[in-house]
Amino acid sequence: QGTRDHPPAHVALRDRLLAAVVTCFKRHGAAAIDTPVLELRETLTGKYGEDTKLIYELQDQGGELLALRYDLTVPFARYLAMNKITNMKRYHVAKVYRRDNPATTRGRYREFYQCDFDIAGQFDPMIPDAECLKIVHEILSDLQLGDFIIKVNDRRILNGVFAVCGVPESKFITTCSTVDKLDKMPWEEVRSEMVGEKGLSPEAADHIGEYVQLHGGLDLIEQLLQDPKLSQNKLAKEGLGDMKLLFEYLTLFGITGKISFDLSLARGLDYYTGVIFEAVLLQPENDHVEEPVSVGSVAGGGRYDGLVGMFDPKGRKVPCVGVSIGIERIFSILEQRVEASGEKVRTTETQVLVATPQKHLLAARLKLISELWDAGIKAEMLYKKDPKLLKQLQYCEDTGIPLAAIIGEQELTDGVVKLRDVATREEVRM
Amino acid sequence: QGTRDHPPAHVALRDRLLAAVVTCFKRHGAAAIDTPVLELRETLTGKYGEDTKLIYELQDQGGELLALRYDLTVPFARYLAMNKITNMKRYHVAKVYRRDNPATTRGRYREFYQCDFDIAGQFDPMIPDAECLKIVHEILSDLQLGDFIIKVNDRRILNGVFAVCGVPESKFITTCSTVDKLDKMPWEEVRSEMVGEKGLSPEAADHIGEYVQLHGGLDLIEQLLQDPKLSQNKLAKEGLGDMKLLFEYLTLFGITGKISFDLSLARGLDYYTGVIFEAVLLQPENDHVEEPVSVGSVAGGGRYDGLVGMFDPKGRKVPCVGVSIGIERIFSILEQRVEASGEKVRTTETQVLVATPQKHLLAARLKLISELWDAGIKAEMLYKKDPKLLKQLQYCEDTGIPLAAIIGEQELTDGVVKLRDVATREEVRM
Repeated sequence: QGTRDHPPAHVALRDRLLAAVVTCFKRHGAAAIDTPVLELRETLTGKYGEDTKLIYELQDQGGELLALRYDLTVPFARYLAMNKITNMKRYHVAKVYRRDNPATTRGRYREFYQCDFDIAGQFDPMIPDAECLKIVHEILSDLQLGDFIIKVNDRRILNGVFAVCGVPESKFITTCSTVDKLDKMPWEEVRSEMVGEKGLSPEAADHIGEYVQLHGGLDLIEQLLQDPKLSQNKLAKEGLGDMKLLFEYLTLFGITGKISFDLSLARGLDYYTGVIFEAVLLQPENDHVEEPVSVGSVAGGGRYDGLVGMFDPKGRKVPCVGVSIGIERIFSILEQRVEASGEKVRTTETQVLVATPQKHLLAARLKLISELWDAGIKAEMLYKKDPKLLKQLQYCEDTGIPLAAIIGEQELTDGVVKLRDVATREEVRM
Repeated sequence: QGTRDHPPAHVALRDRLLAAVVTCFKRHGAAAIDTPVLELRETLTGKYGEDTKLIYELQDQGGELLALRYDLTVPFARYLAMNKITNMKRYHVAKVYRRDNPATTRGRYREFYQCDFDIAGQFDPMIPDAECLKIVHEILSDLQLGDFIIKVNDRRILNGVFAVCGVPESKFITTCSTVDKLDKMPWEEVRSEMVGEKGLSPEAADHIGEYVQLHGGLDLIEQLLQDPKLSQNKLAKEGLGDMKLLFEYLTLFGITGKISFDLSLARGLDYYTGVIFEAVLLQPENDHVEEPVSVGSVAGGGRYDGLVGMFDPKGRKVPCVGVSIGIERIFSILEQRVEASGEKVRTTETQVLVATPQKHLLAARLKLISELWDAGIKAEMLYKKDPKLLKQLQYCEDTGIPLAAIIGEQELTDGVVKLRDVATREEVRM
């Protein structure tokens, strides 16, 4: 349940998509690592907050207690700590596992690919963070998914807001996950969850509401830096200062047009410590469809400066910032687009079919195809002793093979091959 | 235990290796499929004989009982049956899982890649089977792993041998797995296992011994076709007839020089029904090393005509033949070779580092690198506001970046960039 087989047409399209993402990661100088799909259970527990219950655990068959990885970020942090690496730019494209309620029409599965790019190391503020946003911008532009916006916020600003609104520090994380629901619920419902379930005072909730409904650009940052309360809060001031720097760098990258500083963005995971961001498509691709399939966020990430330290025996921290591309959701969109266009995705790359027009010529076919393979040419033949020529040409048309190399008795005698263009039926002896 | 992280140098080398294998599979017209790493437990049980105990099972967390795939063949057979596909040439490159005793120095892990190519469908005899052997020959030749031999046998011939030696049919499978040990034990030990553990008569064992120690080529096939006992056995006669046809096709492919018809080859898995084969390297790559690391078989496969029918509610059979390339063992050899040669594998593809020779030029670097990225050029910069030029050039040398694009105050004024060849130190203003 919640997993699926991928037939050739899927894999061909997915490989194209993954290639585009990996090309971008390599363009930014990242190296690839790979980690096992199995992790020690203790590595994963305590990293995902409420979502820990979604981890797939392996049966205790003697030996270590194992689980399937839930994302690629925690394994990366473990990898850095285990190998005492303090400085690395890496990408990782692999499948992760979540015992979630699948919503397969929206591209949400229990087994799905993640494509992660992360920069680990102690650097000058916001330079790697800005590069992560540039990467999201490049990938979403390259894939021509339609208009999009990248929402940006900072956990320090959110925590500063909570503090000045009178929320006790012990309730920061839980308040954060309530704020995170603002993209799916109206403010009134979020407010009542804060007051009801989370036990905030109505005044605190209202006060939070004034902040988290704000979004804008550099002007909003300036405004909040002047905010009488927020400007008194150390964390918020730090976050806002860095946000200003980030916008400066993004201006140099020429991408602020797609960036929105959005105080409602909170992100679910516990481990973020600074900048957070999430890209959403602004309008559905198929706007002629009555009920457009909502695909939600297509990329997200942020800064997590404390995670590596959780795996280091001495708690040594390695600051990290990274981005994860939501390849499955993007795949759903591209798949719909291909279906709508009627484009036939070729699932093989065969260049030529070796064919014979008469009987008793299998040996000639085997000899010729062997020569072609040895010359690096992608070639197929039918696995029949005496197939009909029509069947062979039909196979070319069905599978998109552009050429047929035909050898009959005459060609054998003359020592030539007849090369036929399947589409035009033009033939050349060679 | 038995799994490992793959650092960038590993992944770079492995990707090269996988690309070579996939190129060959595509050259033979295969399409790619992908299946989940999770299978229903019931799909895997009863397919692997004694090795069923090595399957990783997931904890029962409510819902279906799941296990990690043990190979790619059983999921392929399930895929064909579920989708009622009777005809397909596919490849699949993915990781599989075995709760085996790891032997990591010999490249044996609990999580490892398999690279499978299979042809499903009802075709004329031995044409797809011959292509599988051609593929093994091409890949091992392409990778220049040194001399190799591909052992070939047929389950029908083995069963015929057992029958004429007086083994009851109920003991064919268990006798088969004892014969399979002949590549690791001398005949005397295999014989005593047959008589002791497996309960064959000493006469039957001796008689089997006369057959399974034979190996050769077309002449041996002819000899056995004349064998007074074997020629009376229907199964053996069929197998020998097909083996002769196979050699005919392999002669046309020009690869019989590396093929050995070897009656000791049995293969462990239950599901084989016809031709079986296994490729072994003839001598270790590093023959100057005192204790050469033995890597065992590097490819194997065979025909399994009954497996798909096990997944079809009406038991409809789809004949299949396929090959699996032992990529991890090959990787171990290539890794040793790279280490021995001292070759430094580049783990990134960065073409140019954007550098500045003075302070306060971060904005200029960010602007230039953004232009390069947008032009599709692989570019990096240091994540420092004011890095020293020497540090920047050092980074190029450490990571193999061939070019540095330098912009200083003078270049900014002149509207040019200084492009420096890191190795020759040659510079051009452009």
